[in-house]
Amino acid sequence: MKGINFKIIISFLGLTSMLNGIFMLFAVPFSMYYGESEKWGILQAGLLTIFIGFALWFFNNNAKKNLGKKEGYLIVTLGWLMLSFTGTLPYVFTGTIPNYTNAFFETISGYSTTGSSILTDIEAMPKGILFWRSATHWIGGMGIIVLTVAILPLLGIGGMQLFMAEAPGPSADKMHPRITETAKRLWLIYFILTFVEFFLLKFAGMTWFDAINHAMATMSTGGFSTKNSSVAYYNNIPLIQYIITLFMFIAGANFVLTYFALKGKIQKVFKSEEFRYYFFGVIFFTLILSVIILNYRDLNLVTSIHHPEPWGRTESAFRHAAFQVVSVLTTTGFVSADFTMWSSIGTMLMFSLFFIGGSAGSTSGGVKIVRHIVMIKSSFYEFKKLLHPNAIIPVRYDNGSVPKTIIYNILSFFVLYMLIFIFSSILLTVFGLDFISAMGAAASSLGNIGPAVGTVSPVDNFAHLTIPAKWTCSFLMLIGRLELFTVLILLTPFFWKKC
Amino acid sequence: MKGINFKIIISFLGLTSMLNGIFMLFAVPFSMYYGESEKWGILQAGLLTIFIGFALWFFNNNAKKNLGKKEGYLIVTLGWLMLSFTGTLPYVFTGTIPNYTNAFFETISGYSTTGSSILTDIEAMPKGILFWRSATHWIGGMGIIVLTVAILPLLGIGGMQLFMAEAPGPSADKMHPRITETAKRLWLIYFILTFVEFFLLKFAGMTWFDAINHAMATMSTGGFSTKNSSVAYYNNIPLIQYIITLFMFIAGANFVLTYFALKGKIQKVFKSEEFRYYFFGVIFFTLILSVIILNYRDLNLVTSIHHPEPWGRTESAFRHAAFQVVSVLTTTGFVSADFTMWSSIGTMLMFSLFFIGGSAGSTSGGVKIVRHIVMIKSSFYEFKKLLHPNAIIPVRYDNGSVPKTIIYNILSFFVLYMLIFIFSSILLTVFGLDFISAMGAAASSLGNIGPAVGTVSPVDNFAHLTIPAKWTCSFLMLIGRLELFTVLILLTPFFWKKC
Repeated sequence: MKGINFKIIISFLGLTSMLNGIFMLFAVPFSMYYGESEKWGILQAGLLTIFIGFALWFFNNNAKKNLGKKEGYLIVTLGWLMLSFTGTLPYVFTGTIPNYTNAFFETISGYSTTGSSILTDIEAMPKGILFWRSATHWIGGMGIIVLTVAILPLLGIGGMQLFMAEAPGPSADKMHPRITETAKRLWLIYFILTFVEFFLLKFAGMTWFDAINHAMATMSTGGFSTKNSSVAYYNNIPLIQYIITLFMFIAGANFVLTYFALKGKIQKVFKSEEFRYYFFGVIFFTLILSVIILNYRDLNLVTSIHHPEPWGRTESAFRHAAFQVVSVLTTTGFVSADFTMWSSIGTMLMFSLFFIGGSAGSTSGGVKIVRHIVMIKSSFYEFKKLLHPNAIIPVRYDNGSVPKTIIYNILSFFVLYMLIFIFSSILLTVFGLDFISAMGAAASSLGNIGPAVGTVSPVDNFAHLTIPAKWTCSFLMLIGRLELFTVLILLTPFFWKKC
Repeated sequence: MKGINFKIIISFLGLTSMLNGIFMLFAVPFSMYYGESEKWGILQAGLLTIFIGFALWFFNNNAKKNLGKKEGYLIVTLGWLMLSFTGTLPYVFTGTIPNYTNAFFETISGYSTTGSSILTDIEAMPKGILFWRSATHWIGGMGIIVLTVAILPLLGIGGMQLFMAEAPGPSADKMHPRITETAKRLWLIYFILTFVEFFLLKFAGMTWFDAINHAMATMSTGGFSTKNSSVAYYNNIPLIQYIITLFMFIAGANFVLTYFALKGKIQKVFKSEEFRYYFFGVIFFTLILSVIILNYRDLNLVTSIHHPEPWGRTESAFRHAAFQVVSVLTTTGFVSADFTMWSSIGTMLMFSLFFIGGSAGSTSGGVKIVRHIVMIKSSFYEFKKLLHPNAIIPVRYDNGSVPKTIIYNILSFFVLYMLIFIFSSILLTVFGLDFISAMGAAASSLGNIGPAVGTVSPVDNFAHLTIPAKWTCSFLMLIGRLELFTVLILLTPFFWKKC
């Protein structure tokens, strides 16, 4: 590597922008269908974004094709930022989110598939804008798929190599020929699942518009809803909540496994250690939480006031437990009920799930289950090593032994994750949040979840945060989404040294 | 290793018990001096403890002298438990703490140098008992010195080998001849410093009884006070608070460095990387907190109502900031003011200090500064490695490079620490604590600090906890004090396998 090849980076940003602009244009017909005047604003935003993208690409498509690691890091981070900045244009041009901090927060919350919102009345927003809002999730999800399949294993970030061993496509060594092939297959699955969920939700009783939006927000593990009370709006149609639970669960599983499942190779799915922990973990926490809800929750509290529960107390407790466990574990952040009302135990349990995350190779964020498995196994290994310092005891995962460097990388990831969580909690109190809300907002943003605890609970939103607090959360969403290292490495001095 | 040599373990426990009983007898003259009827109860407790110890030792002193690692682990954990169980006897026999859970909590809080208390009216307790309470701290401190000097490096726990490189005594290789020598020297320093602090506190205006007790609780970084409002009682004598701040700071520094300092080799002290971070960290956080207090605190709140501040607002802010920063960092837990009243920022900042801890080789608990230094450097190293996977970039500490196995061990330690913190926070909500208090009690107990946040704030106590919550905290104090691995390894199945 000599200098950084900025030309190729900019040409990639241009391509990203163009694609983003084309997606904006998809929002225009929705706006037209509902006869909204905002169609013009969205159209302008789309065209401008395409134009910017075209210009960036056109003047740089003569770049040398050499792509090193440094270029990789810059493309990922700047790509996400490019999406986020151009993605604000529909909000800005239509005047639906006039404040730029708010517009940026909402947009990066979309692309990072977080789902935290500064909107206080979602249902009052034009439909075209709501579609665009859900689309940012969906685009973000597509980005994550290509990121995990193609880029992170190449860069060697935080143990993401591990799950790729089982992937139908590339290994870190022989990448190029099959990468695009894998990415395309996974995108196809992503698209099909979104479509199937849309169809089922429509069938179960949603309007087609709500069904599209919720399907996009589910499969990306985003969590933006078109309803003010999120999925609690559908408390009187349990089927809808069950469908969303199922698809959140699928979205939080490794897409490679879903690919095998769709090909009928179910035994391959359960062979995956991460999936087994994920599957039985969801069942375990759902059962515990059901008991807690049955014992503690006033069933008429908050969400159920306006939306009566039709099928009785036990079913309702189970459904909300399952929904919320899956929603938080997969870092989707849809809300069927306010878990901060489920006693201190329920709140603490849910809050601790904030630090687990979904499966690697899914669209979910957070620490991720595979990392926890490796960390816990490696702690156990450390105990053994204390007694037998010279014995070589491998940490096993999925029938292979995990290389030391990957374990080391995973441990470092978690340490960094917790240090950032602590430091940003302090920062958020400086920017005006109280003790609990600061921790909640930090954990939720960093884990790309959405709702949190305190004044940013499932029935609140992020509108009341101060401007610096909103930017802090935006930054946390970005670094959380991009697995910390990818963004933070750009802030180190040695990244910018020539070598 | 064939089987575990239980005979030698039991004979060690006997010796520990005898020493403990002798210390109890020291409390008797205090009780006599104040004409308290409790002298008989303490005397009985002392004699019984000595008798038990003698019996255990007498029937097992014919043990083979082979001491392996397993015996080491068992001696440490069982030794601390032996101290704690026999240490409850003075409370039980005098009827001053009739409930056994409470008595055990108070005792292990003493030996673990935590300083959390279930006493609601400390000043109403007999003096003999108060002396015994402070003595448990002081004995615990002695135990920690021998632990860090002699045992932990041998067992290879959590990077404790690191600071020993500079020690005047042993290295992990050639232990035996110089270990007792080093331990004796450090005990002498411990004793001298306690005596000097006693003298200064007496001189500054404490009664001689309070001076003895506070000196013992300072040098062990324990934090039991003889006053209900802890050191806030002395708000009208700032000099006392400054003296305690200074000695807490010394107690939280590596005793090996104190040894050099006393020999006049000050330059050696500042050569220590951990000490530099400790020193400048204290200054840094004190300044920040002073500003926060000046901006947010209602000076007449809580502690200052009964004890007016004589020297003005700025001095008072600085003094309380310094006192509380040092008190929490060194995990002492003395209280000069209620930091939960210093706005959300102050509370969050103080709470995050809960996770730092003092220096290795001191009597302080928690994660410890050296581990943080290595973790942060190793994260930085991980960034470099992402760009240059094949380069060998050592993590440097104190002019040496840290072996991979130690880094790995430190990272595992922190991961385990945070997982235990999260898990025990959940458990404490199950046992009746609210969200904040559960996290506070868990962090404070695990870090051996004392006061926390929520309903166990600096102006509260632990009396109101449910019985299982108290046992949970007791367990956390024990494992926190013994660097996690030492206790937890006994819970693994392979520890008990013959090999």
